[in-house]
Amino acid sequence: MIDDLKGTAAPGACAPALTLDQVADALCEAHDGLTRESSNGDAHRVLPSRAALVEAVEDLRSVLFPGYVGEPDIGRDSLRFQMVATLDRVARVLREQVKRGLCFTGCAVPGDCAPCEARARDVTAAFIGRLPEVRRLLATDVQAAYEGDPAATGPDETIFCYPGILAVTFQRIAHQLHLLGVPLIPRIITEHAHSLTGIDIHPGASIGERFFVDHGTGVVVGETCVIGNNVRIYQGVTLGAKSFPLDDEGHPMKGIPRHPVVEDDVIIYSGATVLGRITIGRGSTIGGNVWLTHGVPPDSRVSQDSR
Amino acid sequence: MIDDLKGTAAPGACAPALTLDQVADALCEAHDGLTRESSNGDAHRVLPSRAALVEAVEDLRSVLFPGYVGEPDIGRDSLRFQMVATLDRVARVLREQVKRGLCFTGCAVPGDCAPCEARARDVTAAFIGRLPEVRRLLATDVQAAYEGDPAATGPDETIFCYPGILAVTFQRIAHQLHLLGVPLIPRIITEHAHSLTGIDIHPGASIGERFFVDHGTGVVVGETCVIGNNVRIYQGVTLGAKSFPLDDEGHPMKGIPRHPVVEDDVIIYSGATVLGRITIGRGSTIGGNVWLTHGVPPDSRVSQDSR
Amino acid sequence: MIDDLKGTAAPGACAPALTLDQVADALCEAHDGLTRESSNGDAHRVLPSRAALVEAVEDLRSVLFPGYVGEPDIGRDSLRFQMVATLDRVARVLREQVKRGLCFTGCAVPGDCAPCEARARDVTAAFIGRLPEVRRLLATDVQAAYEGDPAATGPDETIFCYPGILAVTFQRIAHQLHLLGVPLIPRIITEHAHSLTGIDIHPGASIGERFFVDHGTGVVVGETCVIGNNVRIYQGVTLGAKSFPLDDEGHPMKGIPRHPVVEDDVIIYSGATVLGRITIGRGSTIGGNVWLTHGVPPDSRVSQDSR
Amino acid sequence: MIDDLKGTAAPGACAPALTLDQVADALCEAHDGLTRESSNGDAHRVLPSRAALVEAVEDLRSVLFPGYVGEPDIGRDSLRFQMVATLDRVARVLREQVKRGLCFTGCAVPGDCAPCEARARDVTAAFIGRLPEVRRLLATDVQAAYEGDPAATGPDETIFCYPGILAVTFQRIAHQLHLLGVPLIPRIITEHAHSLTGIDIHPGASIGERFFVDHGTGVVVGETCVIGNNVRIYQGVTLGAKSFPLDDEGHPMKGIPRHPVVEDDVIIYSGATVLGRITIGRGSTIGGNVWLTHGVPPDSRVSQDSR
Amino acid sequence: MIDDLKGTAAPGACAPALTLDQVADALCEAHDGLTRESSNGDAHRVLPSRAALVEAVEDLRSVLFPGYVGEPDIGRDSLRFQMVATLDRVARVLREQVKRGLCFTGCAVPGDCAPCEARARDVTAAFIGRLPEVRRLLATDVQAAYEGDPAATGPDETIFCYPGILAVTFQRIAHQLHLLGVPLIPRIITEHAHSLTGIDIHPGASIGERFFVDHGTGVVVGETCVIGNNVRIYQGVTLGAKSFPLDDEGHPMKGIPRHPVVEDDVIIYSGATVLGRITIGRGSTIGGNVWLTHGVPPDSRVSQDSR
Amino acid sequence: MIDDLKGTAAPGACAPALTLDQVADALCEAHDGLTRESSNGDAHRVLPSRAALVEAVEDLRSVLFPGYVGEPDIGRDSLRFQMVATLDRVARVLREQVKRGLCFTGCAVPGDCAPCEARARDVTAAFIGRLPEVRRLLATDVQAAYEGDPAATGPDETIFCYPGILAVTFQRIAHQLHLLGVPLIPRIITEHAHSLTGIDIHPGASIGERFFVDHGTGVVVGETCVIGNNVRIYQGVTLGAKSFPLDDEGHPMKGIPRHPVVEDDVIIYSGATVLGRITIGRGSTIGGNVWLTHGVPPDSRVSQDSR
Repeated sequence: MIDDLKGTAAPGACAPALTLDQVADALCEAHDGLTRESSNGDAHRVLPSRAALVEAVEDLRSVLFPGYVGEPDIGRDSLRFQMVATLDRVARVLREQVKRGLCFTGCAVPGDCAPCEARARDVTAAFIGRLPEVRRLLATDVQAAYEGDPAATGPDETIFCYPGILAVTFQRIAHQLHLLGVPLIPRIITEHAHSLTGIDIHPGASIGERFFVDHGTGVVVGETCVIGNNVRIYQGVTLGAKSFPLDDEGHPMKGIPRHPVVEDDVIIYSGATVLGRITIGRGSTIGGNVWLTHGVPPDSRVSQDSR
Repeated sequence: MIDDLKGTAAPGACAPALTLDQVADALCEAHDGLTRESSNGDAHRVLPSRAALVEAVEDLRSVLFPGYVGEPDIGRDSLRFQMVATLDRVARVLREQVKRGLCFTGCAVPGDCAPCEARARDVTAAFIGRLPEVRRLLATDVQAAYEGDPAATGPDETIFCYPGILAVTFQRIAHQLHLLGVPLIPRIITEHAHSLTGIDIHPGASIGERFFVDHGTGVVVGETCVIGNNVRIYQGVTLGAKSFPLDDEGHPMKGIPRHPVVEDDVIIYSGATVLGRITIGRGSTIGGNVWLTHGVPPDSRVSQDSR
Repeated sequence: MIDDLKGTAAPGACAPALTLDQVADALCEAHDGLTRESSNGDAHRVLPSRAALVEAVEDLRSVLFPGYVGEPDIGRDSLRFQMVATLDRVARVLREQVKRGLCFTGCAVPGDCAPCEARARDVTAAFIGRLPEVRRLLATDVQAAYEGDPAATGPDETIFCYPGILAVTFQRIAHQLHLLGVPLIPRIITEHAHSLTGIDIHPGASIGERFFVDHGTGVVVGETCVIGNNVRIYQGVTLGAKSFPLDDEGHPMKGIPRHPVVEDDVIIYSGATVLGRITIGRGSTIGGNVWLTHGVPPDSRVSQDSR
Repeated sequence: MIDDLKGTAAPGACAPALTLDQVADALCEAHDGLTRESSNGDAHRVLPSRAALVEAVEDLRSVLFPGYVGEPDIGRDSLRFQMVATLDRVARVLREQVKRGLCFTGCAVPGDCAPCEARARDVTAAFIGRLPEVRRLLATDVQAAYEGDPAATGPDETIFCYPGILAVTFQRIAHQLHLLGVPLIPRIITEHAHSLTGIDIHPGASIGERFFVDHGTGVVVGETCVIGNNVRIYQGVTLGAKSFPLDDEGHPMKGIPRHPVVEDDVIIYSGATVLGRITIGRGSTIGGNVWLTHGVPPDSRVSQDSR
Repeated sequence: MIDDLKGTAAPGACAPALTLDQVADALCEAHDGLTRESSNGDAHRVLPSRAALVEAVEDLRSVLFPGYVGEPDIGRDSLRFQMVATLDRVARVLREQVKRGLCFTGCAVPGDCAPCEARARDVTAAFIGRLPEVRRLLATDVQAAYEGDPAATGPDETIFCYPGILAVTFQRIAHQLHLLGVPLIPRIITEHAHSLTGIDIHPGASIGERFFVDHGTGVVVGETCVIGNNVRIYQGVTLGAKSFPLDDEGHPMKGIPRHPVVEDDVIIYSGATVLGRITIGRGSTIGGNVWLTHGVPPDSRVSQDSR
Repeated sequence: MIDDLKGTAAPGACAPALTLDQVADALCEAHDGLTRESSNGDAHRVLPSRAALVEAVEDLRSVLFPGYVGEPDIGRDSLRFQMVATLDRVARVLREQVKRGLCFTGCAVPGDCAPCEARARDVTAAFIGRLPEVRRLLATDVQAAYEGDPAATGPDETIFCYPGILAVTFQRIAHQLHLLGVPLIPRIITEHAHSLTGIDIHPGASIGERFFVDHGTGVVVGETCVIGNNVRIYQGVTLGAKSFPLDDEGHPMKGIPRHPVVEDDVIIYSGATVLGRITIGRGSTIGGNVWLTHGVPPDSRVSQDSR
């Protein structure tokens, strides 16, 4: 069963079974779903560009944290001029990428991406309109980070240095696109944050004000999580699914609420695992490394004793 | 014992003990193993290049996932032309880097790297010949990822976005080089994946079909692990060594089987730690945050109760 | 309470509430602490540059590990010439960045950054003078990594590949700046290591000789930790604070010793969480996934049973 | 008449007449032909990309001078693999850019660029088919350069260093596209050579074998020039038009033969100016700085006496 | 007298007279005006940045030729947003560079660069205010280029490809800065055009509407030239000084009118040299390679006969 | 005779004669001297790298004009440190490139490049030792440029802006390498200057103090020119060969003195052409566009009358 590859790979016997030409043929001919066919000029089959999205999100960070991200030292007038231009640039990039995302998962009428284009335009406009709200939420996150970490010397240090702020910024952006029904693009955005910070918050997660992820490496927050205000979580915390119902073909059913609801004023310490559509009551504290698969009432203290 | 550095570093007393010239002298003269001596034209002492390897692996990803990685939209003929050229380029880079890896750990005849060169040529040819098999395995991984994650909208989303797919791709490539007896190079490859994804799978680990690492940050899979088909693991899982026998000089003995054997159809949830050369029987489920140091029979359910 | 954003975001109703111009106005006018005002030519308000610091630390790595990092193959004379020039370049960059860091948190006399400039000059000189000591410590770390990991084929493999060595190098550099009273800059440096390796060691932590972090993703070592000689920790280990006293305004008090003291010859296995100003006695072993909030005497063995 | 700008620009009186906003308005509203309107998604109005063309020409140089341009040291097998892939890449880029060039000057049916696309495909295929002939001609040019310049140490020095070889390579490539009826693109290619070398040979010029331009800065060869075999010209030589007939609206008529015919075995020394549709007979020598507006019979010697 | 270096350089005798250290000392100690002393924090002694200026001029080209230079395909609204932001960015760069230019040649009060800063601000604002006029002139140049070259297929080809348009754009920009009394910066701008095109027009030259430089390599137009409307010149034309009066110390006197005045509707063919403060009367034609040191009345025809 | 290509290229008939595969075959199989064969690991056949040389020359400019080129603002100590390191880096690059240049034209013992390596080492050391002399000469050139151009506002403007200073710097560097018997490399260096400035001075030309090339585009100075002190030349001047003796096979003989000798204090105005091994006597002035093929005595005035 295991490792039969090894048999063919004894270091002393590395004669190539295949020439380079043959390998290329084998790879070209594989019908295994790993080759994305050419679009043959079919514009609506072009993949989204990760690089373009990363740049757009960096642009968004510069309008959400002006002076901290992007150009470091510009006056009020310049700020206004640059912000308009940045938003305009972001909007153009997003329109294109959102359209690609919509087509990626399937145009309404196969081969006709005009509706996707129209929808991308609407979605992008709506998204831009929500940026002030995103920023309002981020301001509460920054305040929470400063207040929640004795090592922080000021709110601006958290903007400048804290991976938790970075990851939440990406997620709040991606979440808006998720709410607007954009496929794929939000996930590309949060996975970029994941790669930079080790913090993996699904774009679908709904998160209230004053959210603070400290240190954060290894944090996983699932797609259908609902997190209230003033919640603080530490590195290695999982808010995941316990199990998922299978459909008739034995595949997991998509889109079912299966992750925790965390009410206001909850703290969850490092390494804790909270699984399933359970509710952590307001004001509770969940200790480190705790394994929790059932809900707890408000003001609970759950911990694991050491030995 | 502790922190005697602090004594010399009172903020008020930061007079430099040493000039820049003196510091340079001290660093140049240190005989501490941290300076790699010049090769003096001795070509077989040149270090491998991490940048060249990273580029080669990216090239390999483009032939393993054509159209998803690398040029996004090329027709069938172009695909064939580009694939041959990419494989040729990869082969040239690998020949050179494998040779350096072999010399790094010591030529058979010191100072004579012709044997290393010949071996690098053979190894590279053998490696290229195994790419169709690598790709076959990856196709099963992609399918497993899609089926195993309710949040995945399609197999191509997992190719495009999932860190688990990325890390396993790197490992399967590195594993082939490991099987072919190449030192150092495989580790550089998996450490690059580790840096991008937080998933650390040793190139020595033997992994069957349909392997899926979900989220993945903090996953560690040790050198002598043997993993069967259809295994799924989550973030923070460790498949590690418990202890290791020391040799006569008190150093850990190298190369002894010391990591778990995981049979087919096993799921290991987030944060679980499985240590030692034990066997997790086919079809078992290991719960989150579980600490496991002895084997379990097939179809076991191991979990940690919450309190 | 939760997710009232969702109400405004029904996919079918994505009419933009705001034009791009209005959004820009709203973002420009927000008085939320997320906009860093222009310095209006006030040089002491310029932000530190993360890119410049990252380059300086890479330069430092090249003088700490010559031949492994930076130019790979230069003779003894060249090494000396280059090392002096590199140190000189580092010193110039640090002087500027340290000055910015000092001004960032507030000049002694607002608007007069001459004292910060003088202090930056002293601090930088002192820092450069300590590099031989930093290197001495790193040589012990490398030896410990080689001896502590059976998979390591030689000390140079650990220099070249191991994220633990990378992270500890960054921290030892940052720690010296921390000891010299530099704000912000040390944190930027360790956060860069955190992003690359998933290992988050606060610059304030005091660490003895022969420190080895294996695998490392998810490791968190807090600001006031004191770690002895010959300590080894694995991935996912937290050395954190348990709780922190609040000041009169209900904010956490800054700078209080609140993280563990780990004495010589301690091993802490993966996923263990050690919290509070407790002492792990010399020679102790802390098992994986253990949750520990009280001190243990020397030579303790603490573990979590599996079920 | 002249310089009335100066009046408004006395250094002491530089009050701005216009705000930045007003300037932007003025520039946006100008109906002066200098603004290229947006295509509004009309794909056939996208401008050619100079950068893409420059890269394609560099690719072409690497297949015309393999080992001298591009990858410097690859074996016979690799050469074949890379050449196929390079040609394929060039073909894809050219297809796109030629299409844009055709659309730039006007699609047959406005708004329908399918015919342009088809034509671009045919033209590109034809162009690729002519590369062996282009290379055959370049081999004669290289030989002529070596034989014609006493300072040349070998033919490969001329390939590697001589601006004349560079400029003629670009022109011979552009000329083929010109012959195939491609607008704009050929001119972009020769203007790039012009910028690099100061040698300006119009893509329309027809040039025989063994053409050598020595030094070359300031050379101008006009659109309808016809140059025979074994012609050598030096820096500053102009083969231009004398005057051009005007059409009914007083504009110069396009496409009329108006530049010199230079027969085989002619040498034209530096700074000579030859104008109009005249013929320089076979075997003639035209001296430096000569001004020539009428034809000369074979074997003429034309010179300017010094004073 | 000549070439005494050669004596010391017989190929057979290349023993180094000096060590690398000694060479460095010699170069550091040279008091030859080739070392620019450190500013020691004296901000007004920082050199202008050629790279920043080149970028600013490229930005300016994108507002002068929107859609042809810079972003190729943006709608009317985006154009307005981007233009404002581009002008703002240009203004910030120019303010800084103009200030450096002013300080470079000497602050009014040594060591006090506040007046230079104020003046840079005024000058930049005035410059931006003149851009519509610059653009108006360029529109006439483009029209003249199209009408004057039978090979041009349309005005936009001249914008996209013609070095003459590029060089005149740079000069018209630089000329405005020159008129505003800015030192050094204008020359850096025109020298960049010179490097790209071989066309060297001094920023001081005053040039009317509809100016067309065809081919252009080798053209030199001197500082005090005054050129009317509708003038056309070809490659290799010099409009230079004949001689210049010396001051009491035998140095050339600066700033004296010493270059030609060229009235409206003049054509000067390739290689012609026109020297001194003479006037070429309206409507004249100067033939190729002509050497002209005295003025000519309107409607003159000056030519050099061929032999 | 002429343009038989045209016959095969009627725009209407662009059917490809050859497939892409066939074209690649044809190009690979061509035995025309345009393919540089692989070295097959024969290190002494590796081509010099133009990019490495360009960087080395830029480094050299930074030690010849410290503070004007390279880092703009460093103190005296830093200058010394950086200069040593720069010279060391230049020396390493040159050793390698000079070796390649020597091997390019043929090792003494074919296949044994040890002698080339030794010679490269000696030559490089000798070259470095001559840099102070190169700098001494450049200081005189800068002074001459300032004094010779009424438009120059100071010597530093000529360092910062004048293409003539750039070209002469490159030539003086290349000339030293030429004197030391290095093939190819010097020509690569002067051709780079040629591309940037349009000024083409052969590395072989011997040039005295106070040499000033004004404007410079189109200047050509031949291999065996000998130029005295205090010589000034303008754009478009050629100091070339008139004719060259053929050897027995009818090829031009290499290395014969065939270019002019220009004595001290000579001025040659724009567009003048001086050909052959003639002598321009001390103190002479050669007018613009003059054609001169015989020597002139001291203090001559040669001019072309205008008409």
